[in-house]
Amino acid sequence: MITSTLEKYFNTVDSLENLYVERLKEAVAIPSVSGDAAYRENVFKMSQWLIELFQKLGISYEVVNVGTQVLDNKTLKLPPVLLGTYGNDPNKKTILVYGHYDVQPALIEDGWNSPPFELVETDKNQLIGRGSSDDKGPIIGWLNAIEAHQKAGIEFPVNLKICFEGMEESGSEGLDEVICKEASRYFKDVDAVCISDNYWLGVKKPCLTYGLRGIAYYKVIVSGPGRDLHSGVFGGTVHEPMTDLILLLSKLVTPSGEILIPGINDDVAPLTENENKTYESIEFDLNEYHDAIESKTTIYDDKINTLQHRWRYPSLSIHGIEGAFSASGAKTVLPAKVLGKFSIRLVPDMDPERVNALVKKYLTEEFSKLKSKNSFNVECLHGAKAWVASPDHWNYIAAAKAVEMVFNVKPDYTREGGSIPVTLTFQDALNKNVLLLPMGRGDDGAHSTNEKLDRSNYISGIKLFGAYLHEIAATKI
Amino acid sequence: MITSTLEKYFNTVDSLENLYVERLKEAVAIPSVSGDAAYRENVFKMSQWLIELFQKLGISYEVVNVGTQVLDNKTLKLPPVLLGTYGNDPNKKTILVYGHYDVQPALIEDGWNSPPFELVETDKNQLIGRGSSDDKGPIIGWLNAIEAHQKAGIEFPVNLKICFEGMEESGSEGLDEVICKEASRYFKDVDAVCISDNYWLGVKKPCLTYGLRGIAYYKVIVSGPGRDLHSGVFGGTVHEPMTDLILLLSKLVTPSGEILIPGINDDVAPLTENENKTYESIEFDLNEYHDAIESKTTIYDDKINTLQHRWRYPSLSIHGIEGAFSASGAKTVLPAKVLGKFSIRLVPDMDPERVNALVKKYLTEEFSKLKSKNSFNVECLHGAKAWVASPDHWNYIAAAKAVEMVFNVKPDYTREGGSIPVTLTFQDALNKNVLLLPMGRGDDGAHSTNEKLDRSNYISGIKLFGAYLHEIAATKI
Repeated sequence: MITSTLEKYFNTVDSLENLYVERLKEAVAIPSVSGDAAYRENVFKMSQWLIELFQKLGISYEVVNVGTQVLDNKTLKLPPVLLGTYGNDPNKKTILVYGHYDVQPALIEDGWNSPPFELVETDKNQLIGRGSSDDKGPIIGWLNAIEAHQKAGIEFPVNLKICFEGMEESGSEGLDEVICKEASRYFKDVDAVCISDNYWLGVKKPCLTYGLRGIAYYKVIVSGPGRDLHSGVFGGTVHEPMTDLILLLSKLVTPSGEILIPGINDDVAPLTENENKTYESIEFDLNEYHDAIESKTTIYDDKINTLQHRWRYPSLSIHGIEGAFSASGAKTVLPAKVLGKFSIRLVPDMDPERVNALVKKYLTEEFSKLKSKNSFNVECLHGAKAWVASPDHWNYIAAAKAVEMVFNVKPDYTREGGSIPVTLTFQDALNKNVLLLPMGRGDDGAHSTNEKLDRSNYISGIKLFGAYLHEIAATKI
Repeated sequence: MITSTLEKYFNTVDSLENLYVERLKEAVAIPSVSGDAAYRENVFKMSQWLIELFQKLGISYEVVNVGTQVLDNKTLKLPPVLLGTYGNDPNKKTILVYGHYDVQPALIEDGWNSPPFELVETDKNQLIGRGSSDDKGPIIGWLNAIEAHQKAGIEFPVNLKICFEGMEESGSEGLDEVICKEASRYFKDVDAVCISDNYWLGVKKPCLTYGLRGIAYYKVIVSGPGRDLHSGVFGGTVHEPMTDLILLLSKLVTPSGEILIPGINDDVAPLTENENKTYESIEFDLNEYHDAIESKTTIYDDKINTLQHRWRYPSLSIHGIEGAFSASGAKTVLPAKVLGKFSIRLVPDMDPERVNALVKKYLTEEFSKLKSKNSFNVECLHGAKAWVASPDHWNYIAAAKAVEMVFNVKPDYTREGGSIPVTLTFQDALNKNVLLLPMGRGDDGAHSTNEKLDRSNYISGIKLFGAYLHEIAATKI
């Protein structure tokens, strides 16, 4: 049921629609690409733009300097982490929202239909521009929600803590340290966390996201000769590292995705009947999925298997080989040392340490079967546990009610196949429930050309954020 | 038995030793790198240097323009093929000698102990410099042999035809056309061919080389999605081209070098007892071989198996994968299209066409077993038959006698594992016996840093070339 307070809020948001679009346009015009040294000053410019908005809205803030990095052989200052506080009423709940103000690179030559850093609106009311959906729309959305409360003369329902970073697209350098350090200080009173940095599963139905897969990334090294050899001169007489590596990699996974490492599935949480049922009602169209991958080469022809293998089962992918011949053309080299790269997406309740042990044991055994004189090693480059939150938590219940109010539909409860490491960091450092509450749609093309945010998603998203906070405030815990 | 004529020739060569070293020094100082556009003018300079020497020695010549190529986005003139004629006595045999005046790239930063284009002599009397052994020493050797005859007042024993090219290190562009065209004109009267562009097997004993392996180079293409995908989002739900390609490549060869393609060995010439015996006396030290590959990762621990698998059995090598992640670090990409590269070294009597058919049939069958929805294709990028000449031919018998005269030892009869395509072109276009008569040693480091030619090999090589031509003249056919 929509209260009169919320109705007033929604009406105010509607009345400010054009201002909000103009504000997003201003933000998109600052090309805050974090992955390219040449754009770094624009990332700082974007942080300054946000600080001015903080000031205008009466948000108190801290600008946290997180040091320097070396990029393209230059030492560069890292963009700051912006911490904000709006309200500190001990009788209200405190919600921490996270987002990022940097963007992926974009060049019109990549195939954009318009200059990527000019927000343009199509006749389908899509707001096209780099960062529109990932993640400038959402972060400005939170600030717009504050402003709408002010303009409507409505009391803000919670204390809001803000954490906006400028390096998300480039490994979130420096962020984890800030979160861990501030957990007992700036974030001390936080009751729950909300992150808006993902997407609806499809294009029609909002969702709440409660799980992400983890990852364990491996490098398998096989080396033999002290230098690269010529296949004519030496082929047939030496153990070739490539032959051994290809054989090892071939033992990892089948074409239909079955992982061949013994024991790997032992810790995968069993699929309960209850969980299985949750997939039935989810809005998901395999045709849209085929459009997304630009082919019909999916392993499964049905929704439930596809979603479950994306979200709740592990997968193993071979990414490539370092040290071998990788250019076009024909070269007759026998590479002396080759490094195969593969990764396993982890799900509850897989433990990265145990997975490492299984991978190492298996590959070591398989290598010894080769009876090769080459040397072999396997290293885990990085590992992260899967994340799964309880959708029964009041944080999710409040968000679900807000979705129903704004969209007149119950949200889908989704997971995602990839990792958003900060989610796990917040959960572990603060020990609070984390909710992923997306603003954009599944076809927004976040890291792609012609990234867009539908005008309706933007405006409804601002309403959703406000309604969510009011529902939080109404929750008795 | 050394005739007084030859003794006079040998003494003259000895007396001209310093002149010959100076001449090689001059040639090495011209950095005639054919593979780098920035050096192209030096390749032309080197051809001019040779033309001046032709003129000085009274060699009549033709400068054959072979057109242009595109290199590093520039259209470049190709260096000319130099054809020379020294003598046209119908009562003498006519021998065609081939060599090349271009060299591999060389930078002191690569690890040279001295500037690569300055010939310097070590205290072990090694002449260090790019091109010293490959192939400036040998081509100048032929010209020095002519000059020594002139200075000694000895009649030159044969008519000599010369074919020197300037693109050997870069695919011999334009050469095949010249050879085929001139087969019935400039090379019409040629009785046999001699190429000095390879090496002794080891460092002590001269050899005559009568066989080379051929090659068939393949590209296996597996493609699925229309674009690269993120392994977190899509891993586990799509057929990954890398998984399929790795499985296909794993079916090609065992770690001990056994090729798994059915029928591939059917046409390999059987090893006769006679042939088997020829390997026993060959000077070959497995320790030197281990030094060359900088490891002890040879498949066989004995000389005979090692030599036979290098020379007279096919081998299969996997070179690399195009389209996959090949840089350092960790990237979670699912490549949309991957191209595996492998090649098979061919031996008598394998036919490239039949090998192609076997490879395609096998991989097509193996791919269908994968039950993948991805697309698959296999292409042969290039193929060349193996070459083997009869070492009983008078061309070889004359060379063997010359070796005994100069070195007091019977030569080894060797083959090589790699391909020198021009060998087969001469044999096929002229239909004459081709002999490979090396000047340098197995450790000269032809394409490596600190390339060298031992002073003794250079001078003995000039004697060998002259003695060989005198033995040719003495042969009754």
